[in-house]
Amino acid sequence: MNPIDIIIKKRDGGTLTPEELQFLVTGYVQGRIPDYQISAFLMAVYFQGMTPMETAAFTRIMRDSGTILDLSDIPGFKVDKHSTGGVGDKVSLILAPLVAAAGLVVPMISGRALAHTGGTLDKLEAIPGFRTNLSIAETNAQLQDIGVALIGQTAELCPADKKIYALRDATGTVHAIPLITASILSKKLAEGIDALVLDVKAGRGAIFREKEKAWELARMLVSTAKQFNLNTVAVITSMDQPLGNAVGNWLETREAIETLKGNGPADLLEITLTLGAHMLVLGGAAENVPAGKALLQKKISDGSAFEKFLQIVEKQGGDVSVIENPAGYPAAKHVMEIKNPESGFVAEINPREIGIISMALGAGRNAVTDPVDYTSGIMLNKKVGEQVAAGEVLAVVYSNQKERLEKNKTRLQKAFQISDHKVDSPLIHGILDTAHY
Amino acid sequence: MNPIDIIIKKRDGGTLTPEELQFLVTGYVQGRIPDYQISAFLMAVYFQGMTPMETAAFTRIMRDSGTILDLSDIPGFKVDKHSTGGVGDKVSLILAPLVAAAGLVVPMISGRALAHTGGTLDKLEAIPGFRTNLSIAETNAQLQDIGVALIGQTAELCPADKKIYALRDATGTVHAIPLITASILSKKLAEGIDALVLDVKAGRGAIFREKEKAWELARMLVSTAKQFNLNTVAVITSMDQPLGNAVGNWLETREAIETLKGNGPADLLEITLTLGAHMLVLGGAAENVPAGKALLQKKISDGSAFEKFLQIVEKQGGDVSVIENPAGYPAAKHVMEIKNPESGFVAEINPREIGIISMALGAGRNAVTDPVDYTSGIMLNKKVGEQVAAGEVLAVVYSNQKERLEKNKTRLQKAFQISDHKVDSPLIHGILDTAHY
Repeated sequence: MNPIDIIIKKRDGGTLTPEELQFLVTGYVQGRIPDYQISAFLMAVYFQGMTPMETAAFTRIMRDSGTILDLSDIPGFKVDKHSTGGVGDKVSLILAPLVAAAGLVVPMISGRALAHTGGTLDKLEAIPGFRTNLSIAETNAQLQDIGVALIGQTAELCPADKKIYALRDATGTVHAIPLITASILSKKLAEGIDALVLDVKAGRGAIFREKEKAWELARMLVSTAKQFNLNTVAVITSMDQPLGNAVGNWLETREAIETLKGNGPADLLEITLTLGAHMLVLGGAAENVPAGKALLQKKISDGSAFEKFLQIVEKQGGDVSVIENPAGYPAAKHVMEIKNPESGFVAEINPREIGIISMALGAGRNAVTDPVDYTSGIMLNKKVGEQVAAGEVLAVVYSNQKERLEKNKTRLQKAFQISDHKVDSPLIHGILDTAHY
Repeated sequence: MNPIDIIIKKRDGGTLTPEELQFLVTGYVQGRIPDYQISAFLMAVYFQGMTPMETAAFTRIMRDSGTILDLSDIPGFKVDKHSTGGVGDKVSLILAPLVAAAGLVVPMISGRALAHTGGTLDKLEAIPGFRTNLSIAETNAQLQDIGVALIGQTAELCPADKKIYALRDATGTVHAIPLITASILSKKLAEGIDALVLDVKAGRGAIFREKEKAWELARMLVSTAKQFNLNTVAVITSMDQPLGNAVGNWLETREAIETLKGNGPADLLEITLTLGAHMLVLGGAAENVPAGKALLQKKISDGSAFEKFLQIVEKQGGDVSVIENPAGYPAAKHVMEIKNPESGFVAEINPREIGIISMALGAGRNAVTDPVDYTSGIMLNKKVGEQVAAGEVLAVVYSNQKERLEKNKTRLQKAFQISDHKVDSPLIHGILDTAHY
């Protein structure tokens, strides 16, 4: 086999064999095939796609490039959730303790901030002392003990995906559906879980703006998961405005805490309950989605979900007093209000813009090694569909660097569109499921 | 500017500015932009193409990456020919002395064997002592003196093209029309010529098998040349069988000598006269193509074309006695005849197969540094359209390694297709011209 022949085969629309894919991936990981050949291959895949069989083979090769966790000693049904990423998406922080409180085991592996979207690990690390880098042994012990762990990607899992993802990021080849599918599923399959729920986001703050592309990704994810006998539900959700009201690490963690206590914003709660209910159904802990939602609501109202979150924070070295008394958390030094110029209805809050501005305020990172300012960010006082009077506050902006507030003021104002009529903003576009695929 | 943004712009079908192209190319040449980003860009260009303006800008950047020759001190009209490459294509060896004998100046820069096609430089170097690596000063002096030089690419000309071509070769991105155009024209523009004739080949032994793609390449070449005010004629010719009867370095040089003496095969002569006549018309040495062909025929019949070839060989250090007495050249050690199994007409001689077999016999190279066996190759006794009796010799094969003859026998037989009726094989598909573009 010869890498050039394989690149040309894919360039010309051919279907690669598992052996050809294996040859490329292991050759790359082991340094025999140079990155410039792999990046040309990835761009050819961007244009020519992969069949479901190719995508499954590619996923399997990535999964098998590292350790596959064995959770069989831990009693209970293990389920995880993955989101394709959005702005204000703090669902994992709520969902993991909530589903664990309802009796399933949740070994949740999350990522860091990427481009304009925040990262679950950064939000967790806003809690002083919180450790996300648990070893495999520590994770297993914690799952045995409290049924849930919130950790980062370890070096042992899917090293091929790590190397290929970095190359995709540098070569404009992130947005290829088979590559996204293989990257997500290889890592989830390596976790050793029994079932998976996917939040596939569509809209201006999502990986795909067009709904049809998000559906296409969801179909590829679910059909590929099915080839591995991993029971999977994909929920296609809207990312046409930020999720919830908070954008920025600590602001989001605090909103997650409020949601666990029963005071969360409606859209965030609805998405969390929907994803969680599917997890419960997959795990046999609820008959159907409405029953699952009711059970989760109960776990919030009786305090057990919040209690589970406290257990996680304590187990992972975080300062529990901050969770019990979020008001005591140091605030950002500078605050600015964004006021509404004309009365009407909020028609749009561009999530991509909000994400980029939040980054610019200090909440994100441009390079992996950049420090994150946990207290910077944006609180939205109004969401799409809400009526606003002229002069009313649309958003409150937080930063530790005063000049960044003024610098981003106009851009933030422009992220809001005001209309003279009420605009609908559907939350959930649809569901795909391996059981019906 | 950021390379990833530029890659994504092209990936999504955008038109790049000259500044963006310049940023990529100079960044790559100077080592600031890594090869894996450039190869992803090249693959994106393969799929999305370039506009004529982008192609011209890319050509200009490549031309300006090195020295541009100044031939203004040399009196006379300077014209060159470039072929996109084929099997048995020894036209340059005949054309350069022939057109120089008719009064134009021919500063011809050629290449080496590539894939299944031979290289003019290798054919010239089959002449003992022949030097193709003249310096710019030596080339100028020779042009002053005898009006023609046959040399190789120098390091000073288009270093960016050299680096990008090597990357294309390794990443399956050779066959992108704007990239081929920029690679050819940047080098020809750097030669400081007044006009250019292009032999754009179509067929199974050519860069593009499909005629429509060859036309597309010819259109891009001519329209781009026009933007540089370089008067250019592209002749679209057939590469559905080898050109002439000889394939292999010395065999081809010998056939070129015979053609210069008036004993060349019909197809080779016709292509050479057509290309040459266009060169004469561009240079004002002939009224029209038929008059140009007649003048060139005269330069063959009066011996002045052959005389000019002898001058070139002498000036460039070659052994003139070999040209004067080709029969004295050492022959390959082993010879094998390929016989025709059934009577009929030759319907096909797969040029790609003939090229690959000739390489396998020792005439080509797999790596740039491989030595070439000058005497190996194939002489075709019959061409497409000719009648053959059963048992008649179709081809004679030469090699210095006996086992290679037997090894390639069946494959060579299969390269011939015999039909029960006569098949036409048109030589020239059409002409494109900056004057009518």
